[in-house]
Amino acid sequence: MTHQIPGINYQFSDPGLLEKALTHRSVGSGNYERLEFLGDSVLDLVIAERLIVLHPKATEGDLSRMRSRLVRADSLRKVASSLDLGKHLRLGIGERKSGGRRRASILGDALEAVIGAIYMDGGYRACQSVILEIFQPSIEDLPDAESLKDPKTRLQEYLQGRGRPLPRYELQEERGADHDKEFSVRCSLRDTEQHAIATGTSRRKAEQAAAQYLYEQLVND
Amino acid sequence: MTHQIPGINYQFSDPGLLEKALTHRSVGSGNYERLEFLGDSVLDLVIAERLIVLHPKATEGDLSRMRSRLVRADSLRKVASSLDLGKHLRLGIGERKSGGRRRASILGDALEAVIGAIYMDGGYRACQSVILEIFQPSIEDLPDAESLKDPKTRLQEYLQGRGRPLPRYELQEERGADHDKEFSVRCSLRDTEQHAIATGTSRRKAEQAAAQYLYEQLVND
Repeated sequence: MTHQIPGINYQFSDPGLLEKALTHRSVGSGNYERLEFLGDSVLDLVIAERLIVLHPKATEGDLSRMRSRLVRADSLRKVASSLDLGKHLRLGIGERKSGGRRRASILGDALEAVIGAIYMDGGYRACQSVILEIFQPSIEDLPDAESLKDPKTRLQEYLQGRGRPLPRYELQEERGADHDKEFSVRCSLRDTEQHAIATGTSRRKAEQAAAQYLYEQLVND
Repeated sequence: MTHQIPGINYQFSDPGLLEKALTHRSVGSGNYERLEFLGDSVLDLVIAERLIVLHPKATEGDLSRMRSRLVRADSLRKVASSLDLGKHLRLGIGERKSGGRRRASILGDALEAVIGAIYMDGGYRACQSVILEIFQPSIEDLPDAESLKDPKTRLQEYLQGRGRPLPRYELQEERGADHDKEFSVRCSLRDTEQHAIATGTSRRKAEQAAAQYLYEQLVND
């Protein structure tokens, strides 16, 4: 059994933990799911602390959005791929044949499980160093807090910060069959005539797009 | 400034952190929200690890349900009340007059913030001991994993475990005005004539109730 994964600066005392962390449920019991549950929590905490230190003025909402971006499935897959984690996975035959080694969800889950295994094997501090090292590039590339907000939130906060009334969203049109709907929404200000109209495959998406257009108008004015 | 909260076995080196953890946003900036974000994560991790150790056979789903029960708002309020945390809170005048000291959400949030403050002040291990001590009674009172499942999940797993087909849910009736609807759902087995009918204020609630009735029939048979 192997004691280490190249690229992860940690040597396991108990290689059985590492093996379990790399074992998908398609192999049977003794798989990574419990370790994944633990690793997910360790990751959340370590990233939370790092963001708090790096962003002394960020609100809880900003911190929460930044963390979500860092730990979402797609981000975990990138980190797992950079470590070539797929190569080490133990998968059942079905999963192996259907490309499980490259599946984003499996890679992210296994990465969390490896983190959980390091916590169990070496404790919190050791695990923290590993996380900070492998997530350093993602933390550095993080967009600023403002651009992580969804457009409706950004528009609302922009207006509130200037003592202006909240925008109004109105459904203009809804067309198409049930499985292929298109919504058209108008977002307008209450204190001027400015407005924007956008369409989307759901009412929510159309609202977000309209808010984005209106925000851009305001910022560019 | 005080260095300690009676009932919490921890002495702060930096009493400013404790003060911040007890300051509600109604007082202004420098409130507990960032510490709460951190404390929430520490709590999740410490409880996760404890449950993993206590329940070596529990699945990830069981562990997740057990933890949700322990950290939900109502459970946090109970722990906070047992520590008389409300007494130490700094609230704005409005919050004070409207009973903020006893509000479940504020108590739970402040408890998480105090946990976050202990982590910042004394590190992970110190914080872990405090959490395990103050949550010990709740951990001991935790219902078993089976009874934490919602009825539909429990029924489904009961049937799957016996190699039987999944139940069928059918909406029988929907009556009442929009704000006061009542749904009636029939849950039936596919391999016998057994079934149960239940009503609820939402389709989901009616399904859960019907599943519960049918599960009880099966177990009592």
